[in-house]
Amino acid sequence: MAGGATGLFGSAQANRAGAIAFSGSPIDRADHIRVDPEALAGLMNWRAKVLMLDGLMPDIDDTGGLVWGTLADIAEDAEIVFLGMLEGKAHFAPVPKRADNGPANPRSWQVMQLLRPEELAIYGGARSLVDWHARHQFCAQCGSPTKLTKGGWQRSCSHCGAEHFPRTDPVTIMLVEHEDTLLLGRQPRFPPKMYSALAGFAEPGETIEEAVAREVHEEAGVTARDVTYLASQPWPFPSQLMIGCTCITDDPALTIDETELDDARWFTRAELEEARNAGDRGSDLLIFPRPFAIAHHLIAWWLDK
Amino acid sequence: MAGGATGLFGSAQANRAGAIAFSGSPIDRADHIRVDPEALAGLMNWRAKVLMLDGLMPDIDDTGGLVWGTLADIAEDAEIVFLGMLEGKAHFAPVPKRADNGPANPRSWQVMQLLRPEELAIYGGARSLVDWHARHQFCAQCGSPTKLTKGGWQRSCSHCGAEHFPRTDPVTIMLVEHEDTLLLGRQPRFPPKMYSALAGFAEPGETIEEAVAREVHEEAGVTARDVTYLASQPWPFPSQLMIGCTCITDDPALTIDETELDDARWFTRAELEEARNAGDRGSDLLIFPRPFAIAHHLIAWWLDK
Repeated sequence: MAGGATGLFGSAQANRAGAIAFSGSPIDRADHIRVDPEALAGLMNWRAKVLMLDGLMPDIDDTGGLVWGTLADIAEDAEIVFLGMLEGKAHFAPVPKRADNGPANPRSWQVMQLLRPEELAIYGGARSLVDWHARHQFCAQCGSPTKLTKGGWQRSCSHCGAEHFPRTDPVTIMLVEHEDTLLLGRQPRFPPKMYSALAGFAEPGETIEEAVAREVHEEAGVTARDVTYLASQPWPFPSQLMIGCTCITDDPALTIDETELDDARWFTRAELEEARNAGDRGSDLLIFPRPFAIAHHLIAWWLDK
Repeated sequence: MAGGATGLFGSAQANRAGAIAFSGSPIDRADHIRVDPEALAGLMNWRAKVLMLDGLMPDIDDTGGLVWGTLADIAEDAEIVFLGMLEGKAHFAPVPKRADNGPANPRSWQVMQLLRPEELAIYGGARSLVDWHARHQFCAQCGSPTKLTKGGWQRSCSHCGAEHFPRTDPVTIMLVEHEDTLLLGRQPRFPPKMYSALAGFAEPGETIEEAVAREVHEEAGVTARDVTYLASQPWPFPSQLMIGCTCITDDPALTIDETELDDARWFTRAELEEARNAGDRGSDLLIFPRPFAIAHHLIAWWLDK
């Protein structure tokens, strides 16, 4: 694949595949094949590798690798998507009968721990794509059934002609800095003591920077300045592009939106360091976000800068 | 609304509403009202302002302002979306009977020239939202009709229970720098002599930086390093979040994807300066992207840095 993809964390860290979980997929997406039905058909033979999935969950081998079968291993009527080429072989994934659409659950977190970084990246991209197909069997424009086309990078309605494309939702996730403290919040579904960066979907009609400013104002009543992009992460539960930023506020007074957050508070550098060093169990005060979440890297960036 | 939203162009420029077209909307999205059916119903009275649209095209007054009517001015069966609060008044927009989903056309470019920056930002956000509703009257999961809910920030299926949310597609758009030249390309639909920054949708399973590296490799055969985020723009044709980046390549040899691009080439600083100074008609060589497009600002940033 094409060369160095960085971000403000700097080349060295971000170029290391998996430095941010779900990034660094080694698959060549080979987009020219998607639009070439003949080439695509030519690749769907006994050599093709097919990702073994139980619903949306992967089979994982003893080395932290994904398990791949052949086209003979999946249901005859299963739709399949073309993930791309790897080591000269075409890789596919089957669309499950049932969709998911939920946030990461305990089984997802286990998968993140078991899979090697590059395998996790392949799985994440595949999961988002097949889950989208499972949830988009009908045309949103006219209600008719749609068909998978372009190797799974499109669905097409033969009734009204509408074309539908896999969806990726941009989500802003942000540090808020005030002097030597950082604002973190907890959603009701978080485990006890876990706090993380505030976050919210970017909406039609706003820039990334406006979305960040709106979110911190809505969720914590804080006025942001100097919004700065730091790094991004694809998050496959179901298909977000996490856009990590930091911003500064001059007034630390909080007005918490209790429909969105259980709590939000300012943490000192010492409190965050202690929680980071305490690992999974956390400190008495706080469980630091897990390394698979971009929030972990954003907070670590602030601690280490 | 919440305070300063910046980006790498620096606070001064980006804080000026409309420095990037379609940004700087003065509307308070008032998300707490969306989820409160009683509050929402209470705002839908004779005081409510309703955006006057002919399909997706706005009425524009002599001062470059949008024309607003009342709920009495729209069809009784029209769905309406809640845009937010402005000057103490609730603002709404009607969902048109016909969808669009196309790129910007000559009429859209005229609207960009006629509307004042803040009005253009209000229009852009509203357009993306109502166009999404027009194209999503049915449930993609089960094919049943859906209903507008949460003031238009959701559609709900009463048959299968699926919830659908307005869509925003992240698109990466990038400068490619090599020594003192810049790589620009032209899509087949561009006017003669117009070149712009390369661009493409971010896909499931990749970071912003990976999407940039993939796009320049696919479209121009170039290997990118040091991808850096610069600025973003909401683009309402139909609903993209343009994520503007720059990157560097060490090898300027091009392999152009002719299914995507008519041409791509390296421009010198002098060639780009001449085209910028020549305005709308362009130089003999090149028409510079229009000020409404983020590409204009990205290239200007490079020229002025």
